Amino acid sequence: MHCRTCGDKAVINMRQHKLALCKTHFLTWVPEQVERTIRRYRMFTHRDRLLVAVSGGKDSLSLWRIITGLGYTADGLYIGLGIDGGLAYSARSLQYAQSFAQQHQLFLHIVDVQTEYGETIPELAERTHRGRHKPCSVCGLTKRHVMNRLARQGSYDVLLTGHNLDDEAAILFGNTLNWVGSYLIRQAPVLEADRPGLARKVKPLCRMYEREMGAYALLAGIDYIHEECPFAAGSTSIYYKELLNKLESDRPGAKLSFYLSFLQASRSGLFSPSADERADLVHNCPECGQPTSAPGRCIFCRMFVVHEDKLEYNGIDLI
Amino acid sequence: MHCRTCGDKAVINMRQHKLALCKTHFLTWVPEQVERTIRRYRMFTHRDRLLVAVSGGKDSLSLWRIITGLGYTADGLYIGLGIDGGLAYSARSLQYAQSFAQQHQLFLHIVDVQTEYGETIPELAERTHRGRHKPCSVCGLTKRHVMNRLARQGSYDVLLTGHNLDDEAAILFGNTLNWVGSYLIRQAPVLEADRPGLARKVKPLCRMYEREMGAYALLAGIDYIHEECPFAAGSTSIYYKELLNKLESDRPGAKLSFYLSFLQASRSGLFSPSADERADLVHNCPECGQPTSAPGRCIFCRMFVVHEDKLEYNGIDLI
Repeated sequence: MHCRTCGDKAVINMRQHKLALCKTHFLTWVPEQVERTIRRYRMFTHRDRLLVAVSGGKDSLSLWRIITGLGYTADGLYIGLGIDGGLAYSARSLQYAQSFAQQHQLFLHIVDVQTEYGETIPELAERTHRGRHKPCSVCGLTKRHVMNRLARQGSYDVLLTGHNLDDEAAILFGNTLNWVGSYLIRQAPVLEADRPGLARKVKPLCRMYEREMGAYALLAGIDYIHEECPFAAGSTSIYYKELLNKLESDRPGAKLSFYLSFLQASRSGLFSPSADERADLVHNCPECGQPTSAPGRCIFCRMFVVHEDKLEYNGIDLI
Repeated sequence: MHCRTCGDKAVINMRQHKLALCKTHFLTWVPEQVERTIRRYRMFTHRDRLLVAVSGGKDSLSLWRIITGLGYTADGLYIGLGIDGGLAYSARSLQYAQSFAQQHQLFLHIVDVQTEYGETIPELAERTHRGRHKPCSVCGLTKRHVMNRLARQGSYDVLLTGHNLDDEAAILFGNTLNWVGSYLIRQAPVLEADRPGLARKVKPLCRMYEREMGAYALLAGIDYIHEECPFAAGSTSIYYKELLNKLESDRPGAKLSFYLSFLQASRSGLFSPSADERADLVHNCPECGQPTSAPGRCIFCRMFVVHEDKLEYNGIDLI
């Protein structure tokens, strides 16, 4: 197998693109693809101040590397979740993120959930009954909250996340299996900051296969945490990824085509905007200012503030 | 495993319903489920004249048996497609359909495509370039045409087809993988006769698993053709069925929930009617009267009439 560009020995064959490339040309090709995605979906320009959500994994660190390499100005945001799982998951993730920032002379915000809010994510999940032993829902909620907060406080124009095609396709597959209208309507490479308190969110890797991003991190010499979050084991998203991988291996390109045809259909107006049940996020939390569906404090603030109440009210669980 | 109703030995365990039944109660349960589907989607009443599309397979013969057993008045329609495939597929299917009709003293219309239109489906596919060696598209087109014609000519109120849940879920899965808006918008248990020339079409088995229908045919002693159409081998719909079967075996009920949540979302207005590209079926074919998207003869009539032209015009292929 030879590189299509120079004829040298290829290091990767991408059946979905009918394209094989050598190391040098693959390392050029990936940023080119990302740049095309940024422009195609009008994600941001060189004038924007960008904030990259960095987990210490291959996707977010590669994303940070790629966009700064493309000449964009981007700080990082690491959220310490306090997950150990027998492998010091959060502590080690932070080390990878910090080393990367230091090595590339980039600025990294660090928000430690326990320091700021008094509890780690597993502790919070355990206490609030929201997914005991499986804190993914609480974790997602917290990360969204912190990302919005930091983007606003730091006056960033856009928040970037490292979701790759496999992530997006798996999310889409789940939303489709259950036909969750409001999620389907809102799944897109760009989420506008259409409510006060929300950051504009973009996913520049949404057209890149996970396998391509793994190869990129490896070939670009990016050190990252290889382990998945210990709570991810057995999750539906991993199950959907496996199912989509089977489909992809039988029909190369199926994953990309599933996602792109969805985006095309969505842009063409397949969904009726009136079916968006989340359109009722019209209130703003008096505590944090972020949108919420009912008057009063948002779920996030209730989660943490109830904790303080609980102490005050002598251990009565108010949730 | 014991029957939930009487405690006798169960013959079938339906994990998706957490329900095991003996032969007697399974043979009562299936028609009850079908009756519920008929009522839930307001498919038809006892006053309607029904026409069942009968292929000689387990689903359509079981459907005919079930609805006549429920007291509805229903004739059958068998369409002879002229498919041999080394196993006399069409000839044997016809025998099963005829024996069934005779045994139950039901009236069966027989339309033989070759007799009426001069060519078998494989010959037609071969000539028209519409799926040479894989005549599924031509076959579907022809069956729809003949069904609409017969329903109208015979003044039937409703046309019934034997699509089961596995069929519907596989169709939905394909339409979802490709996000074909107009197909998604129109997939439903009831298709109204919203254009002149179209019959009202309903699918009373749309909530029944293929496995349940197989068990029903077997236990009810219905003789049917066990072989699939020889052209179905390797088809995408069979591939999607296999994928959904994997999902179902990992998560019992997933197939039903996929289909039902889709119907629910669709009824709740998830799709924007303006995204229906097939809404432009506003013309009527001057030859057959059925709807078509452009003025002039419809695809079906052009397919067959060109054949006659071709003979007249000395073998020049006009397609």
